[in-house]
Amino acid sequence: MPKQTITFHPSQRKITVEKEENLLQAAMEAGIHINASCGGSGTCGKCKVKIHRGTAPTPPHPKLPRWEYDEGFRLACLTSVLDDLEVEVPIESQVDRSVLNLKGDREVQPYLLSPQDIYQLVKGWDVDPAVFKRTVELDPPTLRDNMSDLTRLTMALARQHGLEGISTDFRVIKKLSRLLRTSHWKVTATLVLTKKGYKLINLEPGDTTRQNYSIVLDIGTTTIFGQLLDLNGCIVVACPEGQCDGTTLFALAEASDYNAQISYGEDVITRIVYSQRPGGLKKLQEVVVSTINKIIQELLEMSGLDRSLVSHLVIAGNTTMTQLLLGLDPKTIREEPYVPTANFIPPVRAVHLGIDIGEHVHIYIFPLVASYVGGDIVAGILGSGVFQRDALTLYMDIGTNGEMVLGNKDWLASASCSAGPAFEGAGIKFGMRATRGAIEEVSIHPHTLEPMILTIGRTKPVGICGSGLIDAVAELLATNTIDPNGKFRRDLPTRRIRQGADGYEYVLVEKGETLIREDIVLTEIDIENLIRTKAAIYAGCKALLESVGLGFKDLEQVIIAGGFGKHLDLEKAIFIGLLPEMEIRKFIFVGNGSLLGARLLSFSKDLLKEAERIARMMTNLELSNHPTFMNDFMAAMFLPHTDASAFPQVTQTLRRMRERSRPRGRAEGTA
Amino acid sequence: MPKQTITFHPSQRKITVEKEENLLQAAMEAGIHINASCGGSGTCGKCKVKIHRGTAPTPPHPKLPRWEYDEGFRLACLTSVLDDLEVEVPIESQVDRSVLNLKGDREVQPYLLSPQDIYQLVKGWDVDPAVFKRTVELDPPTLRDNMSDLTRLTMALARQHGLEGISTDFRVIKKLSRLLRTSHWKVTATLVLTKKGYKLINLEPGDTTRQNYSIVLDIGTTTIFGQLLDLNGCIVVACPEGQCDGTTLFALAEASDYNAQISYGEDVITRIVYSQRPGGLKKLQEVVVSTINKIIQELLEMSGLDRSLVSHLVIAGNTTMTQLLLGLDPKTIREEPYVPTANFIPPVRAVHLGIDIGEHVHIYIFPLVASYVGGDIVAGILGSGVFQRDALTLYMDIGTNGEMVLGNKDWLASASCSAGPAFEGAGIKFGMRATRGAIEEVSIHPHTLEPMILTIGRTKPVGICGSGLIDAVAELLATNTIDPNGKFRRDLPTRRIRQGADGYEYVLVEKGETLIREDIVLTEIDIENLIRTKAAIYAGCKALLESVGLGFKDLEQVIIAGGFGKHLDLEKAIFIGLLPEMEIRKFIFVGNGSLLGARLLSFSKDLLKEAERIARMMTNLELSNHPTFMNDFMAAMFLPHTDASAFPQVTQTLRRMRERSRPRGRAEGTA
Repeated sequence: MPKQTITFHPSQRKITVEKEENLLQAAMEAGIHINASCGGSGTCGKCKVKIHRGTAPTPPHPKLPRWEYDEGFRLACLTSVLDDLEVEVPIESQVDRSVLNLKGDREVQPYLLSPQDIYQLVKGWDVDPAVFKRTVELDPPTLRDNMSDLTRLTMALARQHGLEGISTDFRVIKKLSRLLRTSHWKVTATLVLTKKGYKLINLEPGDTTRQNYSIVLDIGTTTIFGQLLDLNGCIVVACPEGQCDGTTLFALAEASDYNAQISYGEDVITRIVYSQRPGGLKKLQEVVVSTINKIIQELLEMSGLDRSLVSHLVIAGNTTMTQLLLGLDPKTIREEPYVPTANFIPPVRAVHLGIDIGEHVHIYIFPLVASYVGGDIVAGILGSGVFQRDALTLYMDIGTNGEMVLGNKDWLASASCSAGPAFEGAGIKFGMRATRGAIEEVSIHPHTLEPMILTIGRTKPVGICGSGLIDAVAELLATNTIDPNGKFRRDLPTRRIRQGADGYEYVLVEKGETLIREDIVLTEIDIENLIRTKAAIYAGCKALLESVGLGFKDLEQVIIAGGFGKHLDLEKAIFIGLLPEMEIRKFIFVGNGSLLGARLLSFSKDLLKEAERIARMMTNLELSNHPTFMNDFMAAMFLPHTDASAFPQVTQTLRRMRERSRPRGRAEGTA
Repeated sequence: MPKQTITFHPSQRKITVEKEENLLQAAMEAGIHINASCGGSGTCGKCKVKIHRGTAPTPPHPKLPRWEYDEGFRLACLTSVLDDLEVEVPIESQVDRSVLNLKGDREVQPYLLSPQDIYQLVKGWDVDPAVFKRTVELDPPTLRDNMSDLTRLTMALARQHGLEGISTDFRVIKKLSRLLRTSHWKVTATLVLTKKGYKLINLEPGDTTRQNYSIVLDIGTTTIFGQLLDLNGCIVVACPEGQCDGTTLFALAEASDYNAQISYGEDVITRIVYSQRPGGLKKLQEVVVSTINKIIQELLEMSGLDRSLVSHLVIAGNTTMTQLLLGLDPKTIREEPYVPTANFIPPVRAVHLGIDIGEHVHIYIFPLVASYVGGDIVAGILGSGVFQRDALTLYMDIGTNGEMVLGNKDWLASASCSAGPAFEGAGIKFGMRATRGAIEEVSIHPHTLEPMILTIGRTKPVGICGSGLIDAVAELLATNTIDPNGKFRRDLPTRRIRQGADGYEYVLVEKGETLIREDIVLTEIDIENLIRTKAAIYAGCKALLESVGLGFKDLEQVIIAGGFGKHLDLEKAIFIGLLPEMEIRKFIFVGNGSLLGARLLSFSKDLLKEAERIARMMTNLELSNHPTFMNDFMAAMFLPHTDASAFPQVTQTLRRMRERSRPRGRAEGTA
């Protein structure tokens, strides 16, 4: 992709972006604050900039007078970068953020991988799905050759495709005779490779090998994500150069929704409690299946594919979610000594669980490690290649449950803690999932405290997702708007901070600029929830490292997974103490790691074995009875941490920032 | 068992029988005719004999005057042989049957094997069922040892019983956690060995290993037989001498019934035709399952066992019966080139077919060979040990379909013909299955034409079963009552032969002596049906032999299977030309061969593999398009056969008999 360089004035800050990048987005990435309160939807008219050099054929806008347009003013949020640009930021937005040092002069963010790079995290596999189709043409029977239809078919599969020792699903046998004859002895067999060999699970007339699809699902406590994959889609890394364009690498469709179980409890513990009520387990099983069915329906509608073309379902979920989906009583997960029913679930037919998909579709369920380390983590370790690395790696999956895995290709140790659903939008007043309309990036002007916000889809804001929340709290802290306990300073001369129904709050967007027609605010309770979440995760990682005699400094790589949204800002995550203070280059952000692993596994039967190996090799550390975890957790209930020596850079930045902010408010006279 | 010798006067014929044998039965076996028309139920009073020497403490009877009793007269049918006896047959019964030469002076009938002998037909197997139970005691989990329940269980099965690589049925996983805890970590696992390894199919609290039962079913076109087996029952041949008493060898219960599909067609062809009607296949599937459920219910009631204790179901049936039971459209079985859907059916859960048995019970279905050679034949070849023999053996299964297998341990060839259900009682006016009240043995006095009949259970007669039918026709032929075309001589001076509603008939039992209160007769149509049946079977065997360049003389052994009843009289079967004329010592009668194989297979997992090997090695000869079969069939539509040279002994006997019978009837003057 061609690149363009943008120089922002008066700071002279430069950033190189891909052609057609949005100018407001580019500013955000460069750490340039430009007031913008409509999320980039082009309605507030605040993100006015002046183009000094370069072409910006942005259309005129009612909020921009004709004379300003003629002088080179543009709304940044409506401007595509088509040329090298020199851009002047308006006076009301100008701020020297260099003291914050939250953004360097990097040209790319090394921790945001391209899809191709993400697939290259795992080496040595080929596109060779465990569920595959093969077309066979059979000789019609004669009196001299009147073996049974099934024998004829399996012999042809052996002879024409080298597939030996096939067992056959009884449903295939049921339709076999008629289908062979109506299809004039040319059929396509769908086979699945199991631990016990090949199983013939479906038969279709003619040649349907081009139509073989898989759905992968990440069943989270709060959110369920699904993707629809073309199993014939070649993957860049597995293709000889030049033979495929890489577009088939991606999911044909993706969809997500809140897990409908939320109505019965916010976290796994309350769900387990609910499951113990009469009919509770059945209810929870039904409602998670209803969400799954909704997502499958959406994926099919988006891709325009018929339900019958889906051959495989791969599911990864934490242990409680997995057991609830399967209707396995999760009681013992909650009670000491925290025992799950099974780690390795045999393939289950999807329709048996009530999932609305072809009768022949079997579910591959990612194996579980322990009561609080589930298939989603095994999938993440698989998808992110931790199991193949030499480097000592920490894998963090930040969801309603926070799980962390430490290790490399030789050993893996895991732990988990109850983090809460803050990053998925639950428990946050205007929280929402990372979908259209969610505020995903926030910058706050240190003097005016006016925000610059960007939403997913560049629509008017609807709410705030995980990455937006991290940004907002980091900016509030950096601008000295909140103190290290997460409480708003009461003395700030701005109408953005006010006493609301739930205590003090910051108005991110005023109702006129939102889609929901009410002010979108961030409350002290929201910030407290976030602090609790980040403290649990940080303390969990610390305890896990210490359990093997290591510390954060020993880590060679940190892989972050979670459904924050696509623009997780690592510097800001470090700034609030969610992530340890380390060189940014050591971090990789893989997004939804569970889905990443599930997607890879759909494409490669070899990775089936690896998934099992990962589950077997992982040793779990129980934090609930851990001697130091609770203290670590309490110590982390501070922004960034009570132990300033663990965050020297952040501490220094905060100190500098506090000095700078003295002119304002109470301490004004001392400047 | 102690033996007693009986000498019959005036013929001086001796027979040695087991103590407590019934005297009328002993006479029948010795070839001594004693008029008896109530089947041995003690009501007609005709079987009066005089005891010359020996004790016979038979109770007095109203039909026997006191003075006769005091002089030593007894009703033979009520007399148990407790002593060596000398018995005088009354004058009206006396006849010199030696000319018929249908019975020699044998002391035992070599072709009637003891149960122990039957099990010894197959060598080299141990009692080691494919479905078995193992008890395990588990260490309860602790915080230091909190592996999943399933891992704990499978590790214990591996450690305590050496069972590795177990896969687990999802239904077991569903109840696992609760069951382990309520049973205080001591449970019994039910496992099945499949081609793909061990599968855990059930789990029960405590130790239930002593209660492991199997049901075996022979699904015939006309009749369904079932037996309930104790899988812990040791079998004599497999036990060290003196360690078991052999009684456990036998089925705990047996039951049989007509296949309810009979209402939809008498043979496989009419069933297939019916299955092509809308809803026909479903109907046929449902009704055969209803019969199966009735038999299972009866077996459970007879044995007093709970349904949940049955762990295995083994089913053998011909190809059409197997496909109908499974709901597989049998259309292509009937149409050239006669192709079955599948030879090897994967294990199916019984409840999926509507069979009322434990959810965990899988059905082992005997593999099929061809459209008209099914699992019942494979079971018969397995159970009778043909697949292990050096000797050239002919195996004949005489049912509604007649199947024959030729070969030895190195090769097997099969053929089949539509024989008709005559031997199972269908298509015969008073025909019935070999159950209580069925006439199973018949002798006819050559001069008076008065019958001597024995029924199963020694009750008043209800009808006539296969072995009774063979006896009756042989006796009618031997006494020159019917001609070789099966037509009654019209000139006989007896009220037993008469013109009935369906043409000429012989009155076997008058209504006063029957349980059904109508005359039990044998009609010319009945005899024609029997001739058609026996001709098809004989011609089928001949064609099969000739197809490999052999003839009956080359045979070293003939094994007869079929549901005639227990007292199939081989000499009489030869006499009518059902069986080839050969030395009696070459014959073995195994009764229901299909059930015999199914029973053995229940006890031995090694035999599972043998069953598959048998099905694979068998080559099938299609008789429907065979060049000489139709001619052979027409030639056999005669008693015993149009080719007298094939039955030299029978022909000679018939000639002698006809000379003797001249004094009677039309030819009387020439005596």
